Amino acid sequence: MQTRIEVGILGATGMVGQHFIKFLQGHPWFDLKWVGASDRSAGKKYKDAMTWHLAGGTPDTVANLTVEECKPGNAPRLLFSAMDAGVATDIERAFAQAGHVVVSNSRNHRMEQDVPLIVPEINPDHLRLVPGQQRARGWKGQIVTNPNCSTIGLVMGLGPMKQFGITKVLVTTMQAISGAGYPGVASMDIMGNVVPFIGSEEEKMEMETQKIMGEFAGDRITPLPAKVSAHCNRVAVVDGHTEAVSVEFSAKPSQADLLHALESFSAVPQQRNLPSAPARPVIYMEEANRPQPRKDAERERGMAAFVGRLRPCPVLDYKFVVLSHNTIRGAAGAACLNAELMHSEGMLD
Amino acid sequence: MQTRIEVGILGATGMVGQHFIKFLQGHPWFDLKWVGASDRSAGKKYKDAMTWHLAGGTPDTVANLTVEECKPGNAPRLLFSAMDAGVATDIERAFAQAGHVVVSNSRNHRMEQDVPLIVPEINPDHLRLVPGQQRARGWKGQIVTNPNCSTIGLVMGLGPMKQFGITKVLVTTMQAISGAGYPGVASMDIMGNVVPFIGSEEEKMEMETQKIMGEFAGDRITPLPAKVSAHCNRVAVVDGHTEAVSVEFSAKPSQADLLHALESFSAVPQQRNLPSAPARPVIYMEEANRPQPRKDAERERGMAAFVGRLRPCPVLDYKFVVLSHNTIRGAAGAACLNAELMHSEGMLD
Amino acid sequence: MQTRIEVGILGATGMVGQHFIKFLQGHPWFDLKWVGASDRSAGKKYKDAMTWHLAGGTPDTVANLTVEECKPGNAPRLLFSAMDAGVATDIERAFAQAGHVVVSNSRNHRMEQDVPLIVPEINPDHLRLVPGQQRARGWKGQIVTNPNCSTIGLVMGLGPMKQFGITKVLVTTMQAISGAGYPGVASMDIMGNVVPFIGSEEEKMEMETQKIMGEFAGDRITPLPAKVSAHCNRVAVVDGHTEAVSVEFSAKPSQADLLHALESFSAVPQQRNLPSAPARPVIYMEEANRPQPRKDAERERGMAAFVGRLRPCPVLDYKFVVLSHNTIRGAAGAACLNAELMHSEGMLD
Amino acid sequence: MQTRIEVGILGATGMVGQHFIKFLQGHPWFDLKWVGASDRSAGKKYKDAMTWHLAGGTPDTVANLTVEECKPGNAPRLLFSAMDAGVATDIERAFAQAGHVVVSNSRNHRMEQDVPLIVPEINPDHLRLVPGQQRARGWKGQIVTNPNCSTIGLVMGLGPMKQFGITKVLVTTMQAISGAGYPGVASMDIMGNVVPFIGSEEEKMEMETQKIMGEFAGDRITPLPAKVSAHCNRVAVVDGHTEAVSVEFSAKPSQADLLHALESFSAVPQQRNLPSAPARPVIYMEEANRPQPRKDAERERGMAAFVGRLRPCPVLDYKFVVLSHNTIRGAAGAACLNAELMHSEGMLD
Repeated sequence: MQTRIEVGILGATGMVGQHFIKFLQGHPWFDLKWVGASDRSAGKKYKDAMTWHLAGGTPDTVANLTVEECKPGNAPRLLFSAMDAGVATDIERAFAQAGHVVVSNSRNHRMEQDVPLIVPEINPDHLRLVPGQQRARGWKGQIVTNPNCSTIGLVMGLGPMKQFGITKVLVTTMQAISGAGYPGVASMDIMGNVVPFIGSEEEKMEMETQKIMGEFAGDRITPLPAKVSAHCNRVAVVDGHTEAVSVEFSAKPSQADLLHALESFSAVPQQRNLPSAPARPVIYMEEANRPQPRKDAERERGMAAFVGRLRPCPVLDYKFVVLSHNTIRGAAGAACLNAELMHSEGMLD
Repeated sequence: MQTRIEVGILGATGMVGQHFIKFLQGHPWFDLKWVGASDRSAGKKYKDAMTWHLAGGTPDTVANLTVEECKPGNAPRLLFSAMDAGVATDIERAFAQAGHVVVSNSRNHRMEQDVPLIVPEINPDHLRLVPGQQRARGWKGQIVTNPNCSTIGLVMGLGPMKQFGITKVLVTTMQAISGAGYPGVASMDIMGNVVPFIGSEEEKMEMETQKIMGEFAGDRITPLPAKVSAHCNRVAVVDGHTEAVSVEFSAKPSQADLLHALESFSAVPQQRNLPSAPARPVIYMEEANRPQPRKDAERERGMAAFVGRLRPCPVLDYKFVVLSHNTIRGAAGAACLNAELMHSEGMLD
Repeated sequence: MQTRIEVGILGATGMVGQHFIKFLQGHPWFDLKWVGASDRSAGKKYKDAMTWHLAGGTPDTVANLTVEECKPGNAPRLLFSAMDAGVATDIERAFAQAGHVVVSNSRNHRMEQDVPLIVPEINPDHLRLVPGQQRARGWKGQIVTNPNCSTIGLVMGLGPMKQFGITKVLVTTMQAISGAGYPGVASMDIMGNVVPFIGSEEEKMEMETQKIMGEFAGDRITPLPAKVSAHCNRVAVVDGHTEAVSVEFSAKPSQADLLHALESFSAVPQQRNLPSAPARPVIYMEEANRPQPRKDAERERGMAAFVGRLRPCPVLDYKFVVLSHNTIRGAAGAACLNAELMHSEGMLD
Repeated sequence: MQTRIEVGILGATGMVGQHFIKFLQGHPWFDLKWVGASDRSAGKKYKDAMTWHLAGGTPDTVANLTVEECKPGNAPRLLFSAMDAGVATDIERAFAQAGHVVVSNSRNHRMEQDVPLIVPEINPDHLRLVPGQQRARGWKGQIVTNPNCSTIGLVMGLGPMKQFGITKVLVTTMQAISGAGYPGVASMDIMGNVVPFIGSEEEKMEMETQKIMGEFAGDRITPLPAKVSAHCNRVAVVDGHTEAVSVEFSAKPSQADLLHALESFSAVPQQRNLPSAPARPVIYMEEANRPQPRKDAERERGMAAFVGRLRPCPVLDYKFVVLSHNTIRGAAGAACLNAELMHSEGMLD
């Protein structure tokens, strides 16, 4: 795995694109060589085409790249897509059609039957949808997606518990403002406030969770036959989505069973030592009042899910809190880990 | 009801005591004449015995009252208790023993079998526990309590729905910092953060909800036979607890049934036109992203509950958001409305 | 003064317009009868033409008014202007030309030589510019302005001290987000942050202060011959601009002289008992750590300036802190008090 | 410099002590081997003696150290002091008396005539006070201090300009809550608020600035003969003190002179390549609205000062903004860099 792989970013000037750029700095496998954005930006140097919104400044390695139009042509084979939903559908398809491997954070294709929606620790085998996707669409390339930022934390918390037969999930999120991009949430709306609504978020969480935790069989995914209900809220936090979860199981595990499952959880990314994989994908915190987004989300380079407060639930069986970093594990890091998984499968060769 | 009634406050120098003082300003029935606090403060002028923490300054009417020890003696018959849980048990009992009507916001006696835990719109008939309380304890006085600040919003949202047979309730709170008093929550803990734990809060919400929504029969309360599960969180909001609620009903009402029940809800405090009663105890907000604590909690003088986003829940039957002002409807205003209800029943004569 | 006066608002759908609507609720002299906005909104009911951003809801009295185009015609004679700077210049002139009294919060005409820039407690005599304005421009109507929100607090703090010969002023502001309108400041920019720059704000504060505190003589204003330097910063506060001020005086007053001047300050609006005038325009707070925006800005209905921490300055002569409510005293309330002053002068007859 | 040096921390369990522990992780010269705290903590394992308040968890290397009493005995020769001002005076003296090198962040000894108050980039030569200190006090050990967190940013911004003859400095700070330790500032005091007062902070900034920028001559420091005036404010920021500064110079430099001085500034820590020294101690940011605490303070590992918005000041000569990380460059990192400077001078041999 010593050959370096050139990569590009579709939608590189937006906030998600900036997160990709930051995450890819110093990556041991991937070299960022190409940045694509809207026609308005194309032809400019990257540093002149956007305002950098993240802590730290524009990385030197990308500052002087020339922004390209989002059209197949001189782009590398492997492309991360950070495009707005408004434009991603056609552009991602065009690149896949032209033979590119599109590893997308956009929501557009996630729920299509032949598109893998991957969290490497949970459903790496869903990548097996790709041959069917290529066949059905006549593509040499492919589209592989990662879920919405609020879904990832949930499925990482639930993943180790799947063996006990999840039948019902009720989750209430407290989501960070960075999930809404830039300018995103107006300060007049969120300072000292809670906004108990995020457009389409609840539907996404409910459906994506069922798909990710579903079974690949034959050539398709059978969604997890669990009822999932989400209440999504925006709170005054910069990074890190906190989620209060209640779950019901068919196998009625003990609390010790669940705790053991959480603490011993390890999966393909850990076994293959993928460069962006956290040593332990789920970290259980013993303290009574953790995890907390400002204090914990950035631990383990923002790539782990942090679980705490596992306890019985009077309505379903158990309840707990899960936290994950929405722009790292929930976006740029998610897609990057997907690409690493794909490389480890030989899908980038 | 034109005779004015003298009242005092036990624990007047703390933050809850200050909320009582602020709420009682200009009250049409009650005259604040007496302020009690710890020995350390007794003998000082009120203004010299504390630091005022609320917006606006110390009201002139109380600034020069002399702080008294919390011992029966020269106190008015009607006393509001804002005492810390650490000291409230014995002091409240001593005053009730000595013939005082103690209307308490403290948690100490709430769950005792013969102590009414009242939300006037929900269970005014639970005041009928008082004669038994007096008989059993040999008191001329009495203790009447209001629930925890996070419980009140929940039961006000659920109250109009009780007719449909509530069987399960799952609630996740996003609670304001003012609920923790002063100095309360350290800014290092809550700025840009969520703390997914509030000591004993979940247990209080679960048990108090069952008691308040229970039935008075014979001389005792039969708790509501519903399962209640609470996830309690602290968020970076000054005033106003927001709660995401899922509910299951035995009678399987339609969404229109529930909406009608919420919008047409009126109860004893409204019918009797109690001075602190909101015109409508529950206000349903049509906007997709409301209610919100900073924008809505202070409406209706902080005495209404605001409900929004009523919709089907894939796990239970319906889900919604409820907001109430934790230091007004959830504390000082709650106790004051309880006293008004008691006065309207002739219990202060 | 019992005849009621009909008024309208230019730019009624924006955030400043909403502040005007809220401030005018229940006004004893002015009846809001007309709301003007862009062509896009014209013809709709007010409630359908905007999203209401302020705490509390859209007042009933305005919700069903039909939004008009901002063209002279059926508008009342007295108009408050809440228009964006991008469009205010021509529209305000057109209305003044057509005989309207335009009392504007917009910045466009403030620094024109024949346009009064008024803070009623400080320079009510500057209204005497109006006849010259009408003469020079051939207008029957007129334009009268109030200053920028950050200027008002400064000049109200300095006003009582003017008698001591102000020669230098150095001010650093910590300004609330509401000053930037809606959506205004992105939460990603201000949460847990300080933005040490507000476009054109420093220049406005410096020049407006000199004009307001200048002398009307002949038919023009001679600016205050003081050097004024402003550092303007945005902080994570909803309402209320806090300003740290150092001042140098030619008359070298004692600290007691200044304190007396602040505490005894009263001016034309107080003497004439104008309805929006605070009883005391400047309130000196003795506490070591006040004034504070969240705790103090709304006192006195948001119409007073709060001063604290008067002490010697090692570089200039004295330093102090001043706070004022930027959307009330600094915008809607400022213009309304200007109109009240004008009415008391017979200028609306 | 390859021999490793054992170090200890006085006051290791408090928040400043935790910052020292975090900063010393992986230090190339210093090995943390000893942690001292109050009698109450002594004898416990470190992890059991405190609640860890910083992002990330308690480092493994210190978690199992046994906390010692703060008495000379088995402590390493080099000790960092993070003690509260209430106890630091005598304990630091006792250790210095017993031969220890006490590198202190506490304020207690800073202003004593024979105690160096060091910012390595600004006044490394002030270490030459030490021999006189040892002689006068009969100590084999010594006390060397770093300034208050708000002073460091100011003097780092002013340092490069000292050559132009600084005669007046007026600074207004907007300081982060982490500067107040834990629990420190109550959330009820600072959420959505500004507190325009920090006890003793203004006096410290004024005097410390004059001492640090003064001249060592003979065996004492002659303070900088400049007038310094500070307005200190607390704002809702977690880390990073932002300061608005106006300065007057005797040499009347051009703006280009100042900019060149800032951008070319380098000093002893850079020349000696001290491990905690930033590559450039002062970084000038060209963007109109920078530096900003949440976005910039952590750059350069929190050890640089960030300057922006250099422009003429109508009252003094120039004004600018400076930002520095208060718990790193302003506390733990400051003391550590002092110790590195001392080691590079052979003072730890």
